[in-house]
Amino acid sequence: MTPQKRPFSSGPTGTPVTESIIQSIRDFRGTGISVLDFPHREELILDRMKAFDSLMRRIVGISDEYAIIPFSCGCSDHFNLWITNVLRVGARPRKIAYLRSGFWSDKALAEAQRLEKVGECEVSVIEHADPQFRSLPDMSYLQMRRPLDADFLYVVANETTQGVRLPYETITSNLPFHVVADFSSCFLEGPLDVSKYGIIFLGAQKGLGPAGLSIVIIRRDLIGQKDNPHVPLSKSYAVQAKEGGLYNTPNFLAIESVCLMLEWIEKHGGLTAMEAQSKERAAYVYGAIGASKRFYAPVVEAARSRTNPVFCPYELIHFEQFLSFCKERGIEFVKGHRSAGNSLRLGLFNGKPMESVYAFGKTLEEFERTA
Amino acid sequence: MTPQKRPFSSGPTGTPVTESIIQSIRDFRGTGISVLDFPHREELILDRMKAFDSLMRRIVGISDEYAIIPFSCGCSDHFNLWITNVLRVGARPRKIAYLRSGFWSDKALAEAQRLEKVGECEVSVIEHADPQFRSLPDMSYLQMRRPLDADFLYVVANETTQGVRLPYETITSNLPFHVVADFSSCFLEGPLDVSKYGIIFLGAQKGLGPAGLSIVIIRRDLIGQKDNPHVPLSKSYAVQAKEGGLYNTPNFLAIESVCLMLEWIEKHGGLTAMEAQSKERAAYVYGAIGASKRFYAPVVEAARSRTNPVFCPYELIHFEQFLSFCKERGIEFVKGHRSAGNSLRLGLFNGKPMESVYAFGKTLEEFERTA
Repeated sequence: MTPQKRPFSSGPTGTPVTESIIQSIRDFRGTGISVLDFPHREELILDRMKAFDSLMRRIVGISDEYAIIPFSCGCSDHFNLWITNVLRVGARPRKIAYLRSGFWSDKALAEAQRLEKVGECEVSVIEHADPQFRSLPDMSYLQMRRPLDADFLYVVANETTQGVRLPYETITSNLPFHVVADFSSCFLEGPLDVSKYGIIFLGAQKGLGPAGLSIVIIRRDLIGQKDNPHVPLSKSYAVQAKEGGLYNTPNFLAIESVCLMLEWIEKHGGLTAMEAQSKERAAYVYGAIGASKRFYAPVVEAARSRTNPVFCPYELIHFEQFLSFCKERGIEFVKGHRSAGNSLRLGLFNGKPMESVYAFGKTLEEFERTA
Repeated sequence: MTPQKRPFSSGPTGTPVTESIIQSIRDFRGTGISVLDFPHREELILDRMKAFDSLMRRIVGISDEYAIIPFSCGCSDHFNLWITNVLRVGARPRKIAYLRSGFWSDKALAEAQRLEKVGECEVSVIEHADPQFRSLPDMSYLQMRRPLDADFLYVVANETTQGVRLPYETITSNLPFHVVADFSSCFLEGPLDVSKYGIIFLGAQKGLGPAGLSIVIIRRDLIGQKDNPHVPLSKSYAVQAKEGGLYNTPNFLAIESVCLMLEWIEKHGGLTAMEAQSKERAAYVYGAIGASKRFYAPVVEAARSRTNPVFCPYELIHFEQFLSFCKERGIEFVKGHRSAGNSLRLGLFNGKPMESVYAFGKTLEEFERTA
């Protein structure tokens, strides 16, 4: 008998609203027409674009001081785009400090360093004590315990590759610089005080919807008004904020999928409930790994990701063995990021049922007994 | 009784493979897992990325001299990106001539003019005799009857807004400049000799798949190798050509949808069959409009689009009247582009059944008798 499939991808990853997405493709909101057949200027589409905005504001608590802009592109495009869009506000090149925390902060840093060469910004780096990024980065700047010589501080709220979570709830309000945060892999894992940030961006494919959609939440006064010809108009924060993401044809299937997921979150208790469930999943998984004699969680406790627990085998032989063992039991996609060596990883995004999490625990336990 | 819905959107528009897309979301290629749950480094995904490439090459006839790159963004991003990616090949600013043919050539021209200001290119314009773009643009440069003082000639193969089709089959081979062509709304309407072009790009949402995916077909020697820091790495033609579109998370749902549509085209006779069907649909529709006493096709015969016939009412009163009349009979989304005034438009992409086209004709006839 084929076991029930339990995918644990860390992204792209599905959501609990897959059937509603299918329903939209079959018959969009009772029209008898597939969502794929709808022109994007139709009233029903415009209504859902508005619903996207209002659901986000209501669920997260985002004031009108911020624009929420959906973009047809990946999150990594914004590693470059936020600079070319935002940094032309002043007359002089503006300074960005990058808080190194892992794979993704380094990817964003590399884009900034390219742009530094052509005078779009000045870049500095806050180094990490651990070259393997298995602990927290220096939080002192974010908690106003040290002055920062920069206009922007760039942080990654959750490093999917290393499985490190920034304790972003401890970030101080009213910092003397703008915090720019990549929230791709932990957005909506719990309450989030957007007012502490200048810019938040994220890719939809980590628990919100299909890949190919990114979302930028930006304080309106940071949106560059001076045209930067190097930015395509469809990637201009000013243009798309004004047009509500409709300057060009939007990736509406993905936006509708996000709307359906936001409605699901609201119906299931909002971000407080999401946080409780997220903590419950993570606690169970880290508990199971802690009890294991074959695997360990390399990240220090205070830095552990709730959405992407990472674990490693003590002995290399158990890496492929466990992957096969999981596969045979329907536990899929637990291989870690290709850059993180022989690590394993579980995607535990909103809506991942405890039943699946228990099934993973049971598999791990069984492996312990037999391997 | 609710009439059967027959959407005629000119984009985004559905395809005949909607049920296969749904099947992929429910159970991707018999794995028991939704395509939305698949990490993009899984073998099955990599296989389909390769299938995308080989299907395109086989169906269109694209040699290995060209790279075929899927991008998570709209086609209009490339109005800017092709310049920032490609024009750094030489030492001097390179010259682009824009063949004005309608709304979309002007959109692309505007992006080039922005980039001209920062020295990325030099732009010239080949004007159109008709300010309303209801006839063909000057084809003399494309047929080597006049010299062109530019390195690139930018053309739009099909102007969706005006409903004008460039007779691109008459373009001469081995022109002394590179032709860059926006094929968004007529790609795969029939055979296409890619070797005549330096770059072809298109958005998927006009008959290939969902919005949020664009495809660039570019002669490899034109891909800029010199890094332009203003281009995000995920939008670098060089990087994504090398990575097969997998530098960052691709919009795989859209790519898979395109694969399914390409397989459908192959199964249904390839581009020769598509051309015959396209001609049959267009001939019927223009015939019906020609027979009408209420509507006329404003575009001269030689310039008429096969994928997007445009027609106008002689009397304004018949515009809204006919739209309602159509809606009552299930004929949806026949309103023209918002910039084209009170025009009507039919999207007649691959797979649109003649039965639907006849239903439109019947509706028009009925309207003639009653209105």
